[in-house]
Amino acid sequence: MLEHKIIQRVEWGDCDAADIVFYPQYFRWFDRATAALFESVGLPVRKLSETYGVLGIPLVDASASFRSPSTYGDDLEITTHIQEWRSKTFVLSHRMMNGDRLAVEGTEIRVWAEKHPTEPGRIRAKRIPDELKALIPAQT
Amino acid sequence: MLEHKIIQRVEWGDCDAADIVFYPQYFRWFDRATAALFESVGLPVRKLSETYGVLGIPLVDASASFRSPSTYGDDLEITTHIQEWRSKTFVLSHRMMNGDRLAVEGTEIRVWAEKHPTEPGRIRAKRIPDELKALIPAQT
Amino acid sequence: MLEHKIIQRVEWGDCDAADIVFYPQYFRWFDRATAALFESVGLPVRKLSETYGVLGIPLVDASASFRSPSTYGDDLEITTHIQEWRSKTFVLSHRMMNGDRLAVEGTEIRVWAEKHPTEPGRIRAKRIPDELKALIPAQT
Amino acid sequence: MLEHKIIQRVEWGDCDAADIVFYPQYFRWFDRATAALFESVGLPVRKLSETYGVLGIPLVDASASFRSPSTYGDDLEITTHIQEWRSKTFVLSHRMMNGDRLAVEGTEIRVWAEKHPTEPGRIRAKRIPDELKALIPAQT
Repeated sequence: MLEHKIIQRVEWGDCDAADIVFYPQYFRWFDRATAALFESVGLPVRKLSETYGVLGIPLVDASASFRSPSTYGDDLEITTHIQEWRSKTFVLSHRMMNGDRLAVEGTEIRVWAEKHPTEPGRIRAKRIPDELKALIPAQT
Repeated sequence: MLEHKIIQRVEWGDCDAADIVFYPQYFRWFDRATAALFESVGLPVRKLSETYGVLGIPLVDASASFRSPSTYGDDLEITTHIQEWRSKTFVLSHRMMNGDRLAVEGTEIRVWAEKHPTEPGRIRAKRIPDELKALIPAQT
Repeated sequence: MLEHKIIQRVEWGDCDAADIVFYPQYFRWFDRATAALFESVGLPVRKLSETYGVLGIPLVDASASFRSPSTYGDDLEITTHIQEWRSKTFVLSHRMMNGDRLAVEGTEIRVWAEKHPTEPGRIRAKRIPDELKALIPAQT
Repeated sequence: MLEHKIIQRVEWGDCDAADIVFYPQYFRWFDRATAALFESVGLPVRKLSETYGVLGIPLVDASASFRSPSTYGDDLEITTHIQEWRSKTFVLSHRMMNGDRLAVEGTEIRVWAEKHPTEPGRIRAKRIPDELKALIPAQT
């Protein structure tokens, strides 16, 4: 398994009137953590597109459980790994710690997609290359 | 069951470099749709706080399935209802249509919470009043 | 002069821990108001691109004065007009009222831009067509 | 003069369909850079509130000039200093470099504000303490 860690500072503007993180921000950070995982093996998102002809790695599904609130000034440690490679989709697992306290856990399912060859404005899933699966080993 | 519908225009700034909605935005719209449901029965978020002493209605869990992409200029119709009232939490269901195409489905689990009486900076769940449950009937 | 008005509801997630709008949101609403002005004359952003070969209408300059705070539940009325058409750029004026109270005033300067013909990843300003200037008359 | 530098990575979700930063994001980064400047002298925003009884440091005015576009994967170096201390407000200057290219320049004017003592939901400017002005020397 390959795990990647990033630190995300919670900023003033990430919080809402209850003084805690406005929850959609956590999904922005999932997205950032996913990009960072790929970048850690030499594949920043732009290169992913250029190398494999994919159009970003769009979401099929996303979910999160919010275990404890965080607020501005906190530094979240986000640990990300690939939980499962499927034929044309893959599952990412994210875990955010706020100090020694679990803050958020979640998963994203993303699709390996290219522009549809004949229908403008549509995308189409394609097979994930084995070399990519080898580069970032999965673990449940 | 009480269902509430809102229209959400997808703006230029909601989209990413793949020309489709950047997915955390959908959760901002879930949040907006939840507020609108409560407002439709005379309880905008601010009044919810003033009437019941709750501190917003923070999230325990959120999930979404992205069925088809949307882009700027699209108008999404978001239909929201309460799927289940529990003792101290409740489940909201959201469904977004883009014309006659299903765009996104998802749920939020939220907690009825107040400031913790003795520990500063902490919140504590409390029982959801029956009158509120009666005001917005649930349906699976 | 052509003025266009939109209503922007301030949502919970637009506010920060001081219980007022987090200021970058106002610029998102400027952007929305600009798109709505063009749409009001039959030119939604996507059509603007298709008709004139421009790549969005990127910003050269943006500024705002925050006259009084707004909070969630408020409805802002945003009035937008073009203050000046220049050769390759134009100036937009936005004014937000919160009831009878002035909330925010600001301007955006945008450039009429296309993809650079020879340098990949660069853009280049081009002359604004007279028919467009006629469609949305300017006023200082 | 005290200058503070931070690095801001441009993420996928910060960009719009033209593949460049959606401009309101730059103001989020101004806000982050301001917080970081205060934190660099031992005054993170939360402590600022606790020490001086201020309610955040709300904006009076913000402006930016966008000199060249940036895209995801770019690292912006943001340099911030205080340009002027006034009696109850102060002016911040921000400059963003993308490698050796100037990307964005801008200023924020913020007010030193407390809760209004008698009118609920209102704020009131107060005098900026001299010790704070000494802690972060200004330079035009």
